[in-house]
Amino acid sequence: MSSNNKNKLTYFHAMGLAEPLRYLLSYGNIDFEDNRVNYETFHEIKPSMPFGQVPVLEYEGEKLFQSIAICRFLANKLNLCGLDAESALECDMIVDTITDLRMHFRDAHFTPDKNLKEQKKEKLIKETIPFYLSGFQTIVEKNDGYFVGGNLTWADLYFVGILCFMESFLKMDMLKEYPSLQQLREKVNNLPMVKKWIDTRPVTEL
Amino acid sequence: MSSNNKNKLTYFHAMGLAEPLRYLLSYGNIDFEDNRVNYETFHEIKPSMPFGQVPVLEYEGEKLFQSIAICRFLANKLNLCGLDAESALECDMIVDTITDLRMHFRDAHFTPDKNLKEQKKEKLIKETIPFYLSGFQTIVEKNDGYFVGGNLTWADLYFVGILCFMESFLKMDMLKEYPSLQQLREKVNNLPMVKKWIDTRPVTEL
Repeated sequence: MSSNNKNKLTYFHAMGLAEPLRYLLSYGNIDFEDNRVNYETFHEIKPSMPFGQVPVLEYEGEKLFQSIAICRFLANKLNLCGLDAESALECDMIVDTITDLRMHFRDAHFTPDKNLKEQKKEKLIKETIPFYLSGFQTIVEKNDGYFVGGNLTWADLYFVGILCFMESFLKMDMLKEYPSLQQLREKVNNLPMVKKWIDTRPVTEL
Repeated sequence: MSSNNKNKLTYFHAMGLAEPLRYLLSYGNIDFEDNRVNYETFHEIKPSMPFGQVPVLEYEGEKLFQSIAICRFLANKLNLCGLDAESALECDMIVDTITDLRMHFRDAHFTPDKNLKEQKKEKLIKETIPFYLSGFQTIVEKNDGYFVGGNLTWADLYFVGILCFMESFLKMDMLKEYPSLQQLREKVNNLPMVKKWIDTRPVTEL
């Protein structure tokens, strides 16, 4: 592949929405430039990004946008959508439910008032996270240690990848009381190419 | 199919997130019970719904959740995901961008303060909607009057279906200044099975 056609992932210097993409690209051994912009540079490039957003993956000359859509596209290429249409649906249901959880983090993160932000973090820890993680744990236990069908799918990689910034935001091990989810994380993070990514990735705050 | 196995869509007496599902089910001539619950009944059934949410589609005995995941599953069955992996990705990128727009509606809708709510509605009308709809119009014009690849896909049905509650919320024709999107809506709403649904559906506020 010529350097002009190099895959380029543009995002902030953060894990956030890009980390599941980096997990999938790494897992698939798909070479990519990990292009991290600061807020100033972002405002310069914003008009050239589809709907003014990142992450964007420049892939074979096209600007792909919407992180979950790109994850699913890569997952299809990497045979990570399960064995049939029902499994693909299950992956999608899980990933969209992870997004529901993530929206609570987003809400807390963007709350300007400091006291209210702390209240929202507390509610996250005491109510929201246990609600979702106990649900996820039940599903993983029914599926032999994976989210879908007893095999690795992109739902597993997505979950572990998005957990990175969630845990950084709260400065805690979210999976402490969920041994089955801990084991799933171990399995994902020990996939050789994912492990290689984690061992070499830049350290970021979120 | 026995009556025990009848497909059942559970949601509020509203268009909201369920309307794109109803469009797709109707388009595909997939028989379903349109089960509409009030808030009291919802709280009774909530614990039996996956992650406590609706819409839920009971389909061949399984409780499917996450409206967009279900739409994509139906779309796959109905050959509405485009002709190849790239088109399927384009559908997903569009639908997730429609969700970005929808989140602004959600934010305005759930703002308790009346003045602030009006301010948010005004910003929606003056800034957010023109930003997204002009972007959508450009895409539709490049694709011969559809969102993806010059053919009808679930992105088109999703857009027109979700527009129903957006327009009810704002009490306005959102597409007035977007002739290509108007034409797309006409095409979708005149698909015979969709038209039949629209002509017979219950009238709701949202």
